[in-house]
Amino acid sequence: MRVGVLTGGGDCPGLNAVIRAIVRKGVPEYGFTFLGFRDGWRGPLEALTKPLDIPAVRGILPRGGTILGSSRTNPFAVEDGVQRIRRTLQNLGVDALIAIGGEDTLGVAAKLHEAGVNIVGVPKTIDNDLAGTDYTFGFDTAVNIAVDAIDRLHTTAESHHRALIVEVMGRHAGWIALHAGMAGGASAILIPEVRFDVDQVCKWVESRFQLEYAPIIVVAEGAIPKEGEAVLHSSATDAFGHVRLGGIGDWLAHQIEERTGKEARTTVLGHVQRGGTPSARDRWLATRFGLHAIDAVAQGTWGQMTALRGPDIVTVPLSEATKKLKVVDPALYAEAEVFFG
Amino acid sequence: MRVGVLTGGGDCPGLNAVIRAIVRKGVPEYGFTFLGFRDGWRGPLEALTKPLDIPAVRGILPRGGTILGSSRTNPFAVEDGVQRIRRTLQNLGVDALIAIGGEDTLGVAAKLHEAGVNIVGVPKTIDNDLAGTDYTFGFDTAVNIAVDAIDRLHTTAESHHRALIVEVMGRHAGWIALHAGMAGGASAILIPEVRFDVDQVCKWVESRFQLEYAPIIVVAEGAIPKEGEAVLHSSATDAFGHVRLGGIGDWLAHQIEERTGKEARTTVLGHVQRGGTPSARDRWLATRFGLHAIDAVAQGTWGQMTALRGPDIVTVPLSEATKKLKVVDPALYAEAEVFFG
Amino acid sequence: MRVGVLTGGGDCPGLNAVIRAIVRKGVPEYGFTFLGFRDGWRGPLEALTKPLDIPAVRGILPRGGTILGSSRTNPFAVEDGVQRIRRTLQNLGVDALIAIGGEDTLGVAAKLHEAGVNIVGVPKTIDNDLAGTDYTFGFDTAVNIAVDAIDRLHTTAESHHRALIVEVMGRHAGWIALHAGMAGGASAILIPEVRFDVDQVCKWVESRFQLEYAPIIVVAEGAIPKEGEAVLHSSATDAFGHVRLGGIGDWLAHQIEERTGKEARTTVLGHVQRGGTPSARDRWLATRFGLHAIDAVAQGTWGQMTALRGPDIVTVPLSEATKKLKVVDPALYAEAEVFFG
Amino acid sequence: MRVGVLTGGGDCPGLNAVIRAIVRKGVPEYGFTFLGFRDGWRGPLEALTKPLDIPAVRGILPRGGTILGSSRTNPFAVEDGVQRIRRTLQNLGVDALIAIGGEDTLGVAAKLHEAGVNIVGVPKTIDNDLAGTDYTFGFDTAVNIAVDAIDRLHTTAESHHRALIVEVMGRHAGWIALHAGMAGGASAILIPEVRFDVDQVCKWVESRFQLEYAPIIVVAEGAIPKEGEAVLHSSATDAFGHVRLGGIGDWLAHQIEERTGKEARTTVLGHVQRGGTPSARDRWLATRFGLHAIDAVAQGTWGQMTALRGPDIVTVPLSEATKKLKVVDPALYAEAEVFFG
Repeated sequence: MRVGVLTGGGDCPGLNAVIRAIVRKGVPEYGFTFLGFRDGWRGPLEALTKPLDIPAVRGILPRGGTILGSSRTNPFAVEDGVQRIRRTLQNLGVDALIAIGGEDTLGVAAKLHEAGVNIVGVPKTIDNDLAGTDYTFGFDTAVNIAVDAIDRLHTTAESHHRALIVEVMGRHAGWIALHAGMAGGASAILIPEVRFDVDQVCKWVESRFQLEYAPIIVVAEGAIPKEGEAVLHSSATDAFGHVRLGGIGDWLAHQIEERTGKEARTTVLGHVQRGGTPSARDRWLATRFGLHAIDAVAQGTWGQMTALRGPDIVTVPLSEATKKLKVVDPALYAEAEVFFG
Repeated sequence: MRVGVLTGGGDCPGLNAVIRAIVRKGVPEYGFTFLGFRDGWRGPLEALTKPLDIPAVRGILPRGGTILGSSRTNPFAVEDGVQRIRRTLQNLGVDALIAIGGEDTLGVAAKLHEAGVNIVGVPKTIDNDLAGTDYTFGFDTAVNIAVDAIDRLHTTAESHHRALIVEVMGRHAGWIALHAGMAGGASAILIPEVRFDVDQVCKWVESRFQLEYAPIIVVAEGAIPKEGEAVLHSSATDAFGHVRLGGIGDWLAHQIEERTGKEARTTVLGHVQRGGTPSARDRWLATRFGLHAIDAVAQGTWGQMTALRGPDIVTVPLSEATKKLKVVDPALYAEAEVFFG
Repeated sequence: MRVGVLTGGGDCPGLNAVIRAIVRKGVPEYGFTFLGFRDGWRGPLEALTKPLDIPAVRGILPRGGTILGSSRTNPFAVEDGVQRIRRTLQNLGVDALIAIGGEDTLGVAAKLHEAGVNIVGVPKTIDNDLAGTDYTFGFDTAVNIAVDAIDRLHTTAESHHRALIVEVMGRHAGWIALHAGMAGGASAILIPEVRFDVDQVCKWVESRFQLEYAPIIVVAEGAIPKEGEAVLHSSATDAFGHVRLGGIGDWLAHQIEERTGKEARTTVLGHVQRGGTPSARDRWLATRFGLHAIDAVAQGTWGQMTALRGPDIVTVPLSEATKKLKVVDPALYAEAEVFFG
Repeated sequence: MRVGVLTGGGDCPGLNAVIRAIVRKGVPEYGFTFLGFRDGWRGPLEALTKPLDIPAVRGILPRGGTILGSSRTNPFAVEDGVQRIRRTLQNLGVDALIAIGGEDTLGVAAKLHEAGVNIVGVPKTIDNDLAGTDYTFGFDTAVNIAVDAIDRLHTTAESHHRALIVEVMGRHAGWIALHAGMAGGASAILIPEVRFDVDQVCKWVESRFQLEYAPIIVVAEGAIPKEGEAVLHSSATDAFGHVRLGGIGDWLAHQIEERTGKEARTTVLGHVQRGGTPSARDRWLATRFGLHAIDAVAQGTWGQMTALRGPDIVTVPLSEATKKLKVVDPALYAEAEVFFG
């Protein structure tokens, strides 16, 4: 059998570990050959390929990024997209496809499966917001990077009288903020799932200062104040309609300074969180996802994706995983609140 | 209610995070007061205590070790041990006990529970070999440290012609070796659960060298060759019966040099693996164990310990957790073998 | 002799290492006793003290921040400041003072020396812009943190088509940007000493993209475009005169997006750079500064500060160190330019 | 001009950074072409080459090891070695050679220079024991790795009653041990330059235990007890003349256990110290060495090597650098002794 492999969506540490595991097992155990498709769904659409054999995957396990490249191309938004993909697979003699990606990539995979393509998915999202799996790789790395930054801020917090804000990834789900904030000992954690009250945040800031210790606030990039997005946007746009340059972290610093009279400083980790070498756990998870994905191909369990359940790897229907976003449960968020202030 | 807290057994990153979470939640949520017992079971035996309130736990989240100290004292091996513990608790007005520890500490806790003491356990083992929970805190940190070391060895492996051996913790279970070896891209992983064949290891070493790349072998300290422990010991003792100084890593290097004619070098990580700041994941897990342990105390679910099941914290009977060691499943080890050689 | 110690100005990893070394040598070697002054010059001004003996400095070597606290208080801006400091020293029986700090703190020290106070300085600036010494502690740590972030961005740069900007510290001198940019393999480095041409930066950005590799630009917070600060400020203020929230990094991202049509993303490391545990080199340097500072006290070489010259610690007049800022030599910056684009 | 480049001797983080800088400057600034020689002096001896141009050096800056490979081959120990090198250079049209290496490699370079070969050297030794330069790259990385390990041991030391020993590199010079021990807050540092007294070490161990804190001892692999090497060897060989497997660290642990009755555990970092990504400082130093080496070639200053003097890069005669080893000055070692015990 000839198996195509592609990676779609944003960067995520562990993508290369998945690709390596697929090939390292698929060749000797099942006698498969492989073909890499470049740049996500653009690869099979435009027949952009890359050789993929054991030498090609040597040394990539610890490397961030993806040797196959990525894109956000959606074949269902392209004329005859599905036909073109079918044709590419047929022309290149590719019998099955492993698609490694997030909600969008796997959503496409689910539809292609319905359209009869032999496909297996591997879930990937640094934000950990994919349903159907306990965790996704990349998330642990991102949380470690954020906690590292928070740890460093603590020593400054001890010596000075400034509120310190760390803006982390998480447009729709607050997993990174919640984990990093709890592991980093934050004075407040603000997530997209629960609108925050700026005055309450200021109260936590002030109560922390009374302990002679500066507050550290972890805010997900998608967090929204109670007053709503409109408030954010109004102060985020100048009179000419130009978009404000900073994000929610800068906005919050500004609010805290205005309301409490204390200085506030923001760290925006940005893409630093999705780059670099994967953590040990992400490599373990990504490698096992790869091994089980190629097993699924060998068993012909199409339309499924690998998933973590407890310490075990299982497969679940792609349709299930892409039905809805996995957001932070209010009960879990409530666990963290005991540390606020 | 007044709650005593103790930590027993070997060092483990995350102990302080558990203690902090217990106190940070127990005081404001339940109105409990706390008393720290020093040095494991020696604390309640000898009434060695330490004040434990919110100021006492400030700043300890990222710190390895345990502010309460630890020991391997077993009250059941001490005359009137149980009586003395009861008396201490009564004298000091302690109504319930949270015992954080491994197989031995929790085994004592299980028996004290049967003897009528109000007790809740929190599982701790860096080796991840406790039954009843998917993972224990400290393990992720240890694996990350080992993978860090393996990553560094890879660049040397690329440039030279030496077999490189990393000896990691794991006297009875190979979890650290298996995770670190798989995440680090090892050429072979040797664990206590599966006796290894030195000649087979040498074959892997030689096949790796043919790829112009030096092999890296991860060996758990408790791994044993097929020929048995006797072989290890015979070459490990000199004519005067003195114990050989090095461990299995040194022994293996010696064997590889003798059998393949290639140089071999060993890194022994030792206690480095159980020290230092906990990883983000271990802090998250330890903190949640602490939060749920104090909930269990509040609910009076005695004789239970906290446990991780998938992404959730549950409680399980202490007796279950200490029944037998959780060792590496042969099927899981087989997953890794595809990467050997 | 009784020796007072204070730390002034911004946070800097290594401050505690200096304090520890002073005490660890001063007590047994010279029989001195010590008194800590809190919060920089506010300490001797207001007689805010902290006991300082060997137990007080245990365990602080690897910790960022300063156990003595800090402030930017200037006794020469306070009525009778010098008199009040003299009086405090006399009242408390303090014979000599070690002042650890940057330009401002040491400038005060130089003037107090002229006024007859027995004083020795230890230079501290994370920005490395103090004259009279090859390097200052804290700088190496800051550069390592920035390089870590740049390394992580590289893997994202490989997979995507976005310009990535890292804003680092350096209001008046570009040492951190220059070192981190060169060590991190940046496509461009922008420093306060040399005004940058946005169009030239955009050319580098575009030439890099042609190599199928996204550009990474390191910009010091004090870097200024050729068009001058006015340009920065005009676009930084909205119609109501509100200050723009982001810094030069956000401004530059905006310019690159407008001029090249490529996406650009900014990471602002902020206070993360000045916190956390010092690098090995900074601990070595800080420790040796402490040892030589107490030697200088013992020898009565007042009005001097410790300095690094090659691998050696020497002392230089405080007046020399505070005469003018040590900025990046154009020739050194030119060395880096070969890597731009 | 066509310039050959080779790397000789043991692994050292920063080698690739040197190679990259040479090529990145040599091509555009001077119009040179380059040829890589593989595996140290074996390359020019046996005409083993590797193409070396700008694409060949992309992405190698942060990578440990050397893309050119290395060896300990000495052309002066090979028949007609010098003639064969000359012939290779002539046949391949190579006008000048840059040799990156330690004492041995640069010693060969010095002699080849005397024999009329156009040669420039770049000093490399992880042990920092080369004369003529303040520091060599790789050293800072090794020290940071060792300090990282020591930091982790401290938390274990706080909780337990074991002496912890860290064996670091340094066969003839104690630079790594001295720097790491001082930066790590060791209770004792043992270096090859100063024979140690086991009884004195045991006294430090015991005095440290009285502070309720376990001692951490940093020992260079080449450290020797007062009793001499013979003692080491006698207890290191069994009755059959087999070499003892462990190193000085294991030997010392054994001695401490026997003499103090306390448990002792050893960590042997081994090759971990010479692998992995270079520290920021090592990348800066290696890059600047590369830039100045190619300048030296352009200027025809043959028979020189680059060297660090304070913050500046200079060139010094190869003969000077290889005359004798740079060992630790007793006065510098004495500075550290104040922290022992």
